[in-house]
Amino acid sequence: MQEVRVGIIGYKFMGKAHSHAYHDIPLFFPDVPKPVKQVICGRDASDVEKARQQFGWAHAVTDWREVVARDDVDLIDISAPSDVHHEIVLAAARHKKHVFCEKPLALTLQHAREMLAAVQEAGVVHMIGFNYRFAPAVQLAKSLIASGRLGTIYHFRGWFLQDWIVDPEFPLVWRLRKEVAGSGALGDLGAHVIDMARFLVGEISEVVGLAETFIKRRPLAAEMTGLSASGEASGEYGEVTVDDATVFLARFANGAIGTFEATRFAPGHRCTHAFEINGSKGSVRFDFERMNELEVFFRDDDADVQGFRRILATDPPHAFADRWWPAGHGLGYEHTIVHEVVELLAALRDGRQPVPNFEDGLRCQAVLEAVERSIAERAWVKVEI
Amino acid sequence: MQEVRVGIIGYKFMGKAHSHAYHDIPLFFPDVPKPVKQVICGRDASDVEKARQQFGWAHAVTDWREVVARDDVDLIDISAPSDVHHEIVLAAARHKKHVFCEKPLALTLQHAREMLAAVQEAGVVHMIGFNYRFAPAVQLAKSLIASGRLGTIYHFRGWFLQDWIVDPEFPLVWRLRKEVAGSGALGDLGAHVIDMARFLVGEISEVVGLAETFIKRRPLAAEMTGLSASGEASGEYGEVTVDDATVFLARFANGAIGTFEATRFAPGHRCTHAFEINGSKGSVRFDFERMNELEVFFRDDDADVQGFRRILATDPPHAFADRWWPAGHGLGYEHTIVHEVVELLAALRDGRQPVPNFEDGLRCQAVLEAVERSIAERAWVKVEI
Amino acid sequence: MQEVRVGIIGYKFMGKAHSHAYHDIPLFFPDVPKPVKQVICGRDASDVEKARQQFGWAHAVTDWREVVARDDVDLIDISAPSDVHHEIVLAAARHKKHVFCEKPLALTLQHAREMLAAVQEAGVVHMIGFNYRFAPAVQLAKSLIASGRLGTIYHFRGWFLQDWIVDPEFPLVWRLRKEVAGSGALGDLGAHVIDMARFLVGEISEVVGLAETFIKRRPLAAEMTGLSASGEASGEYGEVTVDDATVFLARFANGAIGTFEATRFAPGHRCTHAFEINGSKGSVRFDFERMNELEVFFRDDDADVQGFRRILATDPPHAFADRWWPAGHGLGYEHTIVHEVVELLAALRDGRQPVPNFEDGLRCQAVLEAVERSIAERAWVKVEI
Amino acid sequence: MQEVRVGIIGYKFMGKAHSHAYHDIPLFFPDVPKPVKQVICGRDASDVEKARQQFGWAHAVTDWREVVARDDVDLIDISAPSDVHHEIVLAAARHKKHVFCEKPLALTLQHAREMLAAVQEAGVVHMIGFNYRFAPAVQLAKSLIASGRLGTIYHFRGWFLQDWIVDPEFPLVWRLRKEVAGSGALGDLGAHVIDMARFLVGEISEVVGLAETFIKRRPLAAEMTGLSASGEASGEYGEVTVDDATVFLARFANGAIGTFEATRFAPGHRCTHAFEINGSKGSVRFDFERMNELEVFFRDDDADVQGFRRILATDPPHAFADRWWPAGHGLGYEHTIVHEVVELLAALRDGRQPVPNFEDGLRCQAVLEAVERSIAERAWVKVEI
Repeated sequence: MQEVRVGIIGYKFMGKAHSHAYHDIPLFFPDVPKPVKQVICGRDASDVEKARQQFGWAHAVTDWREVVARDDVDLIDISAPSDVHHEIVLAAARHKKHVFCEKPLALTLQHAREMLAAVQEAGVVHMIGFNYRFAPAVQLAKSLIASGRLGTIYHFRGWFLQDWIVDPEFPLVWRLRKEVAGSGALGDLGAHVIDMARFLVGEISEVVGLAETFIKRRPLAAEMTGLSASGEASGEYGEVTVDDATVFLARFANGAIGTFEATRFAPGHRCTHAFEINGSKGSVRFDFERMNELEVFFRDDDADVQGFRRILATDPPHAFADRWWPAGHGLGYEHTIVHEVVELLAALRDGRQPVPNFEDGLRCQAVLEAVERSIAERAWVKVEI
Repeated sequence: MQEVRVGIIGYKFMGKAHSHAYHDIPLFFPDVPKPVKQVICGRDASDVEKARQQFGWAHAVTDWREVVARDDVDLIDISAPSDVHHEIVLAAARHKKHVFCEKPLALTLQHAREMLAAVQEAGVVHMIGFNYRFAPAVQLAKSLIASGRLGTIYHFRGWFLQDWIVDPEFPLVWRLRKEVAGSGALGDLGAHVIDMARFLVGEISEVVGLAETFIKRRPLAAEMTGLSASGEASGEYGEVTVDDATVFLARFANGAIGTFEATRFAPGHRCTHAFEINGSKGSVRFDFERMNELEVFFRDDDADVQGFRRILATDPPHAFADRWWPAGHGLGYEHTIVHEVVELLAALRDGRQPVPNFEDGLRCQAVLEAVERSIAERAWVKVEI
Repeated sequence: MQEVRVGIIGYKFMGKAHSHAYHDIPLFFPDVPKPVKQVICGRDASDVEKARQQFGWAHAVTDWREVVARDDVDLIDISAPSDVHHEIVLAAARHKKHVFCEKPLALTLQHAREMLAAVQEAGVVHMIGFNYRFAPAVQLAKSLIASGRLGTIYHFRGWFLQDWIVDPEFPLVWRLRKEVAGSGALGDLGAHVIDMARFLVGEISEVVGLAETFIKRRPLAAEMTGLSASGEASGEYGEVTVDDATVFLARFANGAIGTFEATRFAPGHRCTHAFEINGSKGSVRFDFERMNELEVFFRDDDADVQGFRRILATDPPHAFADRWWPAGHGLGYEHTIVHEVVELLAALRDGRQPVPNFEDGLRCQAVLEAVERSIAERAWVKVEI
Repeated sequence: MQEVRVGIIGYKFMGKAHSHAYHDIPLFFPDVPKPVKQVICGRDASDVEKARQQFGWAHAVTDWREVVARDDVDLIDISAPSDVHHEIVLAAARHKKHVFCEKPLALTLQHAREMLAAVQEAGVVHMIGFNYRFAPAVQLAKSLIASGRLGTIYHFRGWFLQDWIVDPEFPLVWRLRKEVAGSGALGDLGAHVIDMARFLVGEISEVVGLAETFIKRRPLAAEMTGLSASGEASGEYGEVTVDDATVFLARFANGAIGTFEATRFAPGHRCTHAFEINGSKGSVRFDFERMNELEVFFRDDDADVQGFRRILATDPPHAFADRWWPAGHGLGYEHTIVHEVVELLAALRDGRQPVPNFEDGLRCQAVLEAVERSIAERAWVKVEI
């Protein structure tokens, strides 16, 4: 496989980030199949044509059904809102297209199950967009845990803290409406924390959670469609139907315990996707706001020089570092997306499933659903796929 | 009141820390009644005599009953293990002695209720040893919240992370045995986090928790008595009967939500008593390992210079700073104890109750009990006094 | 001007970084002329052809004279070693090509003067590659100083600390030989610090310096040509003829004083290009290893909340932030190059000189030469252009 | 020797800090001779009597000549301003008293020579008050260097940054007048940095410096005597006759190179007494504002986990840690003074000279004088004792 022809659905934040990844990969990763920016799809013809020109796609269309049906497309990239993931994936699978779907996989666990079944039945490659796994510092955490250098894992604590809707006059954008977004902070942010926990610690067996909507009514935005998180106020108010914040406790199958928090009400936190993990031999911690760094502690360091090390994961042997710049020259957010797509393309080249794939999407969805049920029932809930 | 004659019960960690506070206060706080180190009490006659000489107490005795009965003592300082607090407080109250009791107040909520009732009936001054309130940086957090500069509080997250028993061969000292310690990480460390939350955010209304004992059997220590956390191994093993770690979720009466964690299994954390609080106007965060600092974020800072400020609370107008050293010359752990005792002595001088007092001890105990019940029942439990 | 056709000389580190910038600019900055990757030049025909394919250039050649003479090229990008800058710039000017030259501009002040004169006489656009100015956090520092928010500047302290040649067995690569590199840490790293000081504080009037070569002989590299800093050892040793480290003191024309340090012998520092500036109203500090952050202190903050703010320069109103990702999604090293090239393209579009240009290159060279003379003469030396 | 009877001259900042050390040592260091607070001396009879009472001294006098002559005093503690050190030391030596003198030792190198000669001739114990050596984290740095774990030292960079006189209306207190203070930032702050460099790296062989007085005239303080740095403004202005800031470069005898900076014009820095040292095997860095921490980097750590370690020097095996509190319970500024006095008392017990002593005071003075001469002569100056 020399090339992979891509059809992308969505052209806002994720559409832009994915387009950039396809654009840059040939320069830095010539050893994976070259992605070809074949067709971009969006509902507004004028906007999508503008995106096509800017991001360098060959064609622009407004109906995603056309994309999944095209002969000149190998891979469907679903960068559209969560409520349409299910329908698109099923259609793509019918057309035997490979699928790269943004997170969360679906709005419900049942949908997620159907989506996994569909791609498995179709025999196509499938990937889910948990991009934060691909920060080199996170890869280092994985490597330390997988090789046993942290010992038995006891604690996971994970957060995704943001502050973009603390202002009560921030409008009621689509991300705050359950019918479109499915979930608020939990599905948007918490899904990433859950995936990080699964990636690094293992499967979660049971949860109990708590959710809150601090600002219950917000100004209606004049423009309520689109993928954007922003929007102008219209003077009228509507009800916020998702969670502003969700916290939960968890037991892992391997005996570790965890605390999870996802909120959009943490002033000063722009994108604190952070975690700390404690094991019998040491600890690691990470904060995406300083994504090039991992802090690591080893219990077997000499007694007089024990302390958290601040490791800059910017040069070999750190993951992906040989492709970029010299030591200390940091990477940015977009590189997590590039690395993620490299994994997808490598999997296509090697005839294997990439990781994370829809099974990870489904398992994450099962945790999300258990959390939501535990909140509704005010009880511990076991995670079931 | 010119002087306060103290009788202290206990001479290990807390006995030493309190002795030092009584010793130093006249040098730095000549405006509160001078504490007189009258009598020190411990079970081992030889050890307590040694402590008497080193810490400068006038008399040494081995029976606490003698201390509470003495005519030459005004204040009983209970620096003994938690399981004897109840009996001593009741006796002290009968003798109309003022009481300064280390935390946690009691092993059970019922005991705590009786202790508060006893001191109230006796009409004596009572204080509980939640010393961390008295770090100047914590006082700053309190001041910012009380004056409304953080707005409505949405989130509390608090931790007390240590790592001194991660080694599975660490012996079964008294702090790991329920019959003496009452509780493990929760009562020892979690009590401090709960008090900090109450102090800064307000009353907790309901909780759901999770506890774990990662290392279930440990070597029996040859010497199992005493206040020490250390001890030599004997070759035999015994069961750990307290929690190694406890985490819980909470709702506050004012609508805020919280996550709490107390653990002795977090390698690299020597004494991470830390919290972060998010409000509608800003955030604060604190870590006792950097106790002279508070980080503060204000949403109304100019857009181009918004960021967490690292504030060194070492010079006026910061609390207590005028009594110590110039700006930037930090304080240490022991100063929290000094400040705490200053509050007690000032209350004695002014004829008022100090803060925190047994009511705070009781309310903390109510939360502890609710957490334990929620763990046993695997359910949300309301906090009741 | 719709497009700018580029001919680049050099295909290693800088050639790759610049190629990437030309490649990505149309996606994120469609409002500047589109760079066309016309021709890439390098001495090794096979390697340059490989680079051509990977980075997407139309043509590859091995003689830079051919590049500057081509009719299908508007802009000459000099990403070659320092010793050939002078000759190429003069040739490019003769051909009336716009020039973008990597730093340092030249090996001598006299060469730098001739190069500025040449481009001025030719009337072409000229730019020098001081890319670190273009980190958004550095732009914020500039904005705070320029608008007077730091008041009168008293102190500048700047460092560029690396550690890649601390190992005494690291081979004698070209960067360690005076005849090719011209200078060691001073010219390579110190030049960036000088430019940062000039950008933020102003002109330097006099200097006194000190240089040291800690490891005086190193293994000869088997492969000594090329732009690479690496190379295999051959068994023989040769003399290191440049400085491993240079430090100097400076007076600025505006009365500020400064300390400067450039070294390759600071273990743990991968790329600590850092500075702190103190003014009568406040301070700023920056470290490229955390390039998305600027720390800022204001003396007029309320007394109880004064402290260095950690500002994440990742969202508007920070420079360039509207073109990239949401708040808290950091940028990397390569973005400084992208922004730099955007300035160049905008200048071409607007018919003005970009900043920094050869005049900045010349003034930096004058400081470098003064520092070197002060070291040789063991005396203060005035900076003269 | 069971007890050491102390006569202290001075009762402001240093007098208070030393009094506290004598007061606390018996509680924590019962193994050194017990200091007896015999007599305190100050020029104002009422103030010194007040200090006597507060700090617990037996007697108070107003003439230091009386102190050095008393039979009931073994040790003279000189906590008075720098301009009287010389006369007091000579008198104390004549009376065969041991001497503990605050830094800087003298106002001139000649005076320092005479003082060292006097105490050596008298055969008494002598110590100089470079207290920062006694922070446990600094002791760790010393231990790492002394044991070779950092290898050959290449770089020292040291700062003492404060901001208490940035306000141009801050009055002309004694510390800003050459006739009393001898020197400004250099003697007050730079002396500490020089001592730290000598302690950790070794002797300084030559220097070149630069000094600046940014604010040349200040309001006259109504009260200009006393040791205090503060004072009320009177409406008139006088000339500042000392340096606001001094920076210098240095060569060490062992081949290392250094940069030094002392300033009172660094907004946001309350007490940044900081250094970084780079050696062939690793690096250390320290900032007194976080005095319980040392950052350490080792080049021989595994490649994937190299990074600066943040070490909390609060538990054994760290220096002095066994005498204080459990791990993670930090110490404060005053503990450096306590440890310093413990070294003095241990030396008295053991019949040896403490370190640092007047020889260190003299060598520091030689560097100070060389720096001042290099500034006056605008030239490199060799350090000569």
